[in-house]
Amino acid sequence: MSMTAEEIKDNAKKYVLQSWSRQGGLNPLAVEKAEGIYYYDFDGNRYSDMASQLVNLNLGYGNADINAAIKEQVDKYCYIGPSIASEPRSTLAKMIVDLLPDTFGKVFFTNAGADANENAIKIARLYTGRKKIFSRYRSYHGSSFGAGNLTGEPRRYPLEPGIPGFVKFFDPYIYREPIDFASEEEATKYYLTKLREQIIYEGPDSVAAIVMETITGSNGIIIPPKGYLPGVRKICDEFGIVMICDEVMAGWCRTGKMFAFENFDVVPDLVTFAKGVTCGYLPLGGVAVSTKIAEYFDDHLLSCGLTYSGHPLACAAGVACVNYYTKADIPGNVNKVGKVLADILDEFREKHSCVGDVRHIGLFSCVELVKDKATKEPLVAYGKDPEGIMPKIIGMLKEKKFMTYSHENMIFICPPLIITEEQLREELAKLDEVLAVVDDTFI
Amino acid sequence: MSMTAEEIKDNAKKYVLQSWSRQGGLNPLAVEKAEGIYYYDFDGNRYSDMASQLVNLNLGYGNADINAAIKEQVDKYCYIGPSIASEPRSTLAKMIVDLLPDTFGKVFFTNAGADANENAIKIARLYTGRKKIFSRYRSYHGSSFGAGNLTGEPRRYPLEPGIPGFVKFFDPYIYREPIDFASEEEATKYYLTKLREQIIYEGPDSVAAIVMETITGSNGIIIPPKGYLPGVRKICDEFGIVMICDEVMAGWCRTGKMFAFENFDVVPDLVTFAKGVTCGYLPLGGVAVSTKIAEYFDDHLLSCGLTYSGHPLACAAGVACVNYYTKADIPGNVNKVGKVLADILDEFREKHSCVGDVRHIGLFSCVELVKDKATKEPLVAYGKDPEGIMPKIIGMLKEKKFMTYSHENMIFICPPLIITEEQLREELAKLDEVLAVVDDTFI
Ligand SMILES: Cc1ncc(COP(=O)(O)O)c(C=O)c1O
Ligand SMILES: Cc1ncc(COP(=O)(O)O)c(C=O)c1O
Repeated sequence: MSMTAEEIKDNAKKYVLQSWSRQGGLNPLAVEKAEGIYYYDFDGNRYSDMASQLVNLNLGYGNADINAAIKEQVDKYCYIGPSIASEPRSTLAKMIVDLLPDTFGKVFFTNAGADANENAIKIARLYTGRKKIFSRYRSYHGSSFGAGNLTGEPRRYPLEPGIPGFVKFFDPYIYREPIDFASEEEATKYYLTKLREQIIYEGPDSVAAIVMETITGSNGIIIPPKGYLPGVRKICDEFGIVMICDEVMAGWCRTGKMFAFENFDVVPDLVTFAKGVTCGYLPLGGVAVSTKIAEYFDDHLLSCGLTYSGHPLACAAGVACVNYYTKADIPGNVNKVGKVLADILDEFREKHSCVGDVRHIGLFSCVELVKDKATKEPLVAYGKDPEGIMPKIIGMLKEKKFMTYSHENMIFICPPLIITEEQLREELAKLDEVLAVVDDTFI
Repeated sequence: MSMTAEEIKDNAKKYVLQSWSRQGGLNPLAVEKAEGIYYYDFDGNRYSDMASQLVNLNLGYGNADINAAIKEQVDKYCYIGPSIASEPRSTLAKMIVDLLPDTFGKVFFTNAGADANENAIKIARLYTGRKKIFSRYRSYHGSSFGAGNLTGEPRRYPLEPGIPGFVKFFDPYIYREPIDFASEEEATKYYLTKLREQIIYEGPDSVAAIVMETITGSNGIIIPPKGYLPGVRKICDEFGIVMICDEVMAGWCRTGKMFAFENFDVVPDLVTFAKGVTCGYLPLGGVAVSTKIAEYFDDHLLSCGLTYSGHPLACAAGVACVNYYTKADIPGNVNKVGKVLADILDEFREKHSCVGDVRHIGLFSCVELVKDKATKEPLVAYGKDPEGIMPKIIGMLKEKKFMTYSHENMIFICPPLIITEEQLREELAKLDEVLAVVDDTFI
């Protein structure tokens, strides 16, 4: 292959349908190569990836260990069906179980995040014999019919009328709650009471699972208050409900722990994962399953399956990737650089009148923009941005080669976890400048 | 990595949840290497892959072109997000559009077959503004909620209660139709009349799409009679319904044509694909979209998206794979060796009292087993095989290193498309022997 940059772009526009877009106005840049936290166009321009693409490229570009593992497996075989035992698949499954609390027993592999969630809810339904599935507003769990029906935001709409038995509850989005809580504990109590009440009114015996992003990702890095997740755990135990944590975005060291739930003193029954398990080098996802639930399928049919389940080449990439997190002490770097990120973002909240809130944990963070700090009026109304203010802000960042994306009135800062303190400071200085322009121009 | 065969198997049993199985009795074999149509265990035993794994490994194992393309792309970058233009993605999209009739315009890439179908029905709903989706009994379209609700067999059951608006109709399974048709044309007329009637009773203005496997695959290589698909096309045109052909299994030269619909003088609006597009070397799938429907999304939001859409490494494998079909004249081989397969299977139908029917096109074939040729009573009743007769038959084939799988009372013969006549004859001799045992023992 050897197209010019223009041909690559022209053919992209002419032949490729791009996710979540009107295709008319698209003008994608073409990438030539990529290394570390940077990628480059064909004119040699360097772009800083401050969103790890879609918060999946945790180890950045060009990781030598993962590349070598892929090539080595290619020389053996790329694919073998799910019913045949394959070394990379066996190895990765064991590694994942070993990284999880010892209540976990087995892994069911999928291709991505959406189908990880699809299969998790199937497993919960089969195991409990119940049908209802609770999930939250302001969540994203994928775009296929099952995962999309879990999703609590507009990307669900084209999948409606929805699947019977999918029930939504509200998440602990304290910053915008109409109530003022005296403490985190009080907030937790409020949310748990409302959830328990809703379960009782839906009929606890009909509820198979509660699905939550451990930390809400694309809907705004919403971090649960102290005691919230253990409280949900207690409700699940009380009613025999399967607790599913979606760690597709928050898992794999993003928060400074291998899995995000480790921050909250809780152990779910099922954990769904994707993204960071291979850092996108190959498509892979999966469901980690507690021993208790896994054992149920010793003599009951696991009615789940897909052609590429446990894809050997993807698992080989996964083995190298997951090993690298420990080998390079990625959690250590996330905690160190994450502290710098936290301090600077907190400073932005003080300094910039457009910054209503900042939320951060590890290298998982966002800045929420407002017109007015006191009223918290969002910079753009929910689901509405007729003047394209957010795209303009993302465009200003892009001019400085600070590459990220926005959701509603929020900007994400989720760099690859290998970023150094110096690199981070250099990038955040750009964000600082752009926020100053927003202060002056848009509010 | 360097586990022993025993460790690989033990860890598979201990840590991996396997598709569509009770986990208790599993005893998978471990594969060490693979080449051509064969794979090998750690004791040097050679297995003949007569199902191309899950009818996806069209080019067999160890294809040098695909392997080289993967390694080359690894040295550039493995992943970049869907919004950035990438050479392998642009190239593959153009290649696919160029291979299709000139009514086709663009491709939306997914990870596999299930999500290809999920996105096809979303596209049809968005484009038409209608909700109902017609699909057929005795079909398999994937196991996620959307694709699984299209599916017309027991693998759908755990997804029920189903998604509102998914309607099933019956397929042209002439062999088991209670009516005797005087001709193929009469059969076609019957099926089309019933379908049109059902659409009218469902309300044609509410029907977004009709989804069909061009040739039903895992439910028994059911080949549509002459005129059937053009007749469905006419009904779609009459009522403004989007015609979707699922070519996940039947596409990519399996039938001797690049796409299966080319056998039937028809052009669908959307074609879903996966499997053969990369032969499983990397996970990939997609939806090819007519120019007319693609253009609708120039100024309407395409509410479809996934992290790995158009994965560059997967697309690089796809480019090499799709090129290879033409370069090595795979359709030529399929037509040549397919003729031998057809003759031998037809002979089996005459010769073996257990063979009720054989169906074949290209290297896509199955043998349907009966207790009694005259009554057509199936060897095992639908959904019931308490004595495990079919697993026993598959086991006898396995003893001869003839590897395939069964569905209900059917055995699949779908070898890699690179198989030679000699190799095929060698394998079919084994099947002949096993069928003789079935004649003598099971009926
Ligand atoms: C929390 C969460 N779950 C699931 C998904 C869906 O993953 P995929 O795009 O791989 O289907 C995403 C993707 O952004 C996600 O952030
Ligand atoms: C016709 C057809 N459609 C869709 C699928 C689902 O593909 P996948 O397993 O990649 O999701 C299959 C898989 O066997 C298939 O045969």
